[in-house]
Amino acid sequence: MKTYTNVKDLGDLNAAIQEALEVKKNRFGYKHLGENKTLLMVFFNSSLRTRLSTQKAGMNLGMNTMVLDINQGAWKLETERGVIMDGDKTEHLLEAIPVMGCYCDIIGVRAFAQFENKQDDYEEKILNQFIKYSGRPVFSMEAATGHPLQAFADLITIEEYKKTARPKVVLTWAPHPKALPQAVPNSFADFMNEADVDFVITHPEGYELDPKFVRGAKVEYDQDKALAGADFVYAKNWAAYTDPNYGQILSKDRAWTVSTEKMALTNNAYFMHCLPVRRNMIVTDDVIESPQSIVVQEAANREISAQTVIKRMLESL
Amino acid sequence: MKTYTNVKDLGDLNAAIQEALEVKKNRFGYKHLGENKTLLMVFFNSSLRTRLSTQKAGMNLGMNTMVLDINQGAWKLETERGVIMDGDKTEHLLEAIPVMGCYCDIIGVRAFAQFENKQDDYEEKILNQFIKYSGRPVFSMEAATGHPLQAFADLITIEEYKKTARPKVVLTWAPHPKALPQAVPNSFADFMNEADVDFVITHPEGYELDPKFVRGAKVEYDQDKALAGADFVYAKNWAAYTDPNYGQILSKDRAWTVSTEKMALTNNAYFMHCLPVRRNMIVTDDVIESPQSIVVQEAANREISAQTVIKRMLESL
Amino acid sequence: MKTYTNVKDLGDLNAAIQEALEVKKNRFGYKHLGENKTLLMVFFNSSLRTRLSTQKAGMNLGMNTMVLDINQGAWKLETERGVIMDGDKTEHLLEAIPVMGCYCDIIGVRAFAQFENKQDDYEEKILNQFIKYSGRPVFSMEAATGHPLQAFADLITIEEYKKTARPKVVLTWAPHPKALPQAVPNSFADFMNEADVDFVITHPEGYELDPKFVRGAKVEYDQDKALAGADFVYAKNWAAYTDPNYGQILSKDRAWTVSTEKMALTNNAYFMHCLPVRRNMIVTDDVIESPQSIVVQEAANREISAQTVIKRMLESL
Repeated sequence: MKTYTNVKDLGDLNAAIQEALEVKKNRFGYKHLGENKTLLMVFFNSSLRTRLSTQKAGMNLGMNTMVLDINQGAWKLETERGVIMDGDKTEHLLEAIPVMGCYCDIIGVRAFAQFENKQDDYEEKILNQFIKYSGRPVFSMEAATGHPLQAFADLITIEEYKKTARPKVVLTWAPHPKALPQAVPNSFADFMNEADVDFVITHPEGYELDPKFVRGAKVEYDQDKALAGADFVYAKNWAAYTDPNYGQILSKDRAWTVSTEKMALTNNAYFMHCLPVRRNMIVTDDVIESPQSIVVQEAANREISAQTVIKRMLESL
Repeated sequence: MKTYTNVKDLGDLNAAIQEALEVKKNRFGYKHLGENKTLLMVFFNSSLRTRLSTQKAGMNLGMNTMVLDINQGAWKLETERGVIMDGDKTEHLLEAIPVMGCYCDIIGVRAFAQFENKQDDYEEKILNQFIKYSGRPVFSMEAATGHPLQAFADLITIEEYKKTARPKVVLTWAPHPKALPQAVPNSFADFMNEADVDFVITHPEGYELDPKFVRGAKVEYDQDKALAGADFVYAKNWAAYTDPNYGQILSKDRAWTVSTEKMALTNNAYFMHCLPVRRNMIVTDDVIESPQSIVVQEAANREISAQTVIKRMLESL
Repeated sequence: MKTYTNVKDLGDLNAAIQEALEVKKNRFGYKHLGENKTLLMVFFNSSLRTRLSTQKAGMNLGMNTMVLDINQGAWKLETERGVIMDGDKTEHLLEAIPVMGCYCDIIGVRAFAQFENKQDDYEEKILNQFIKYSGRPVFSMEAATGHPLQAFADLITIEEYKKTARPKVVLTWAPHPKALPQAVPNSFADFMNEADVDFVITHPEGYELDPKFVRGAKVEYDQDKALAGADFVYAKNWAAYTDPNYGQILSKDRAWTVSTEKMALTNNAYFMHCLPVRRNMIVTDDVIESPQSIVVQEAANREISAQTVIKRMLESL
């Protein structure tokens, strides 16, 4: 595996799940793969879960790990040719990225959507420059339009908890005080569309996601109807994608908060969220603290999804 | 050992000292214990000695180590239930702490007193939440009311330098320009009260410490009398504990600075301080540079106290 | 090797180059040397290449590595005796540095010129205090007046690419929007003067470097004349050294930018720069993207120069 940015990079999805479950049972069984290999994690944005789980995954595999925090704004990369660099950008990506590649074997990159220019975000400018210029296998640790380590962890968790061969999985928008990128719902849709599940997306009108990720999924604007019979409820906020509202908050309607009443509509569904979560905005205390809440188990699987991806990259070196 | 927050957690104190001295002679003799084990160090406050010594201790034991710096204020944890999280707190501790526990085997936590609410500080809200919710052994890397790795290192140092079976140890308040927590003097008293020493505390009136830590120790308001015949002088500033002055500076009287004249009252005592130290406020240049100053040796034993505690936690996994 | 601050510390320079090339072929062949040894990297200034390459070098050697970032200004060390420390400086270097030495076996220090006091900068106050008080081997990761890991990497790169026994190497000043220290040109001159090369320095009048580093090198104020027949062009900006202009920008003349026209004057020279580089100020896009540009290879050799230096320090422990 040379890049990991979306579900297609995993190839056969059932095989990937099985491999992940194997890794989970035997985390330290692959340490020979990482011997004398270095993982570089580059953060353009802050992180708790991704930072710890990915570092842990690399260490499980016997790798040396290095973390580089690029202070937001402090290290501005010039991306254009021909510019006279006499301003605040101290380095051109065409030097910076190959140099980072010199000092490691595999690179993880976190670079969120900026919400300044939709095209820049959806072209994944920063991530793709790492893929193109670093000379190393590159995986996304959440980029502008996707968070595939999260979605893979989500899928592993659904596999572990599902009670039927083809569970109903509902991705529901929920309110939040700040404008958040679409990376998590995009990748979740990307994965669910390939998984053996009955996948429904529900959100207020105006919150339609990029059709590239929605694909054949059912979109239901009535949250109650969507939740009916669900086996898994995956809550997440995102800001608007569609023009001219890209990056805008259109609603903070707490009628969309996942509550006990909402969960009562489901087939005793499990509650999922990528975390961090705003309680009583996204989900009520009661629901997230209930036995059906598997948010911590889901977070724990971030280590497993990362380790599976890095393991495949090590095997391909 | 499942928690380390005070002297009682060590059990037999002489056995703990002997184990520490054994560790000091053979730092790398226990690397098998930490194989495939991960130490997570969580810092809510900045650190130099604690960060380096604890990380070193974990590495001595063959562990993988991860450091998480929680920028003060940047990552505000909600602690109450029922709150609609539409403000600046992005995550609830009930999710954040179990998730951190997922990615490691042992957690060290640094979280200073905030001096905003005495009850919150003295209930050790943050530390205890890690103990309660992380699912992992937790040790204090200096919390609101105690700094037990420091006090254990102090005790090891006294054991190494004492010339009599039961030395006289004096904890003396000294002036400082800023309001400092009571964590260090609290833990020092906690340990000295259990150790085989003649323990005296001296400070200006109004600086009385929590009786929970002072216990049966002699409190002498005349610094000169306290210092008479001392074998060890342990200087430290702290802000007032007693109401209504909690967290206040009541004195900056440099008559309490530990000087050559003060040390002349002692039994050629060793000078100790946890560092960092303000020269010519806490102690004069002459005293801290004298052969009787053992502040660097004391700091060096921070690695040993941390390694002994982590070793015991590894053994109990 | 107990210190590494300048070319003399390497002893026989050809032997050092050969050792570096040996290390490059067999990076993981010396892991036994670093077992149970700890490298501490102390950064008073930010870093990308140095941080990653030096950490990688330590890990290649099997060492444990720790990084300490001293926020600029946040941790102010008192350096004078007799001062009553009641201001913003929380610790005296005479405690801080020996304590850092307690927790490691080898220390790397980055501490740039401050441009506040020429004497302080050129006495290398911070670096020398680490050498004097840490009790450990100390190497410069760029200090006020030198960047010897960079210059050693430069020399290794020249050795790898040179086509004649004694190539002509030209260090040329080039314009930049900010005032930069002389550390890189100083060390480059220090090394080139000892290497088997024909060394020429060119810069506008007023940009003369410290004679201690220039020594017998030819200084040519006409850049075109200097570049004639060059085999390697090493571009770098620096602020003025000579009084009364120390630390000042005297010129931003883009006639000194290394362009295709300038490179046409050379003997098909390789282009070098320590990075980060301002394009179209220091060098044009065309030149830095040309096959003759070896800036990334040069950066890659930072791992090798660091590993060779740390290896020698480990051997001397």
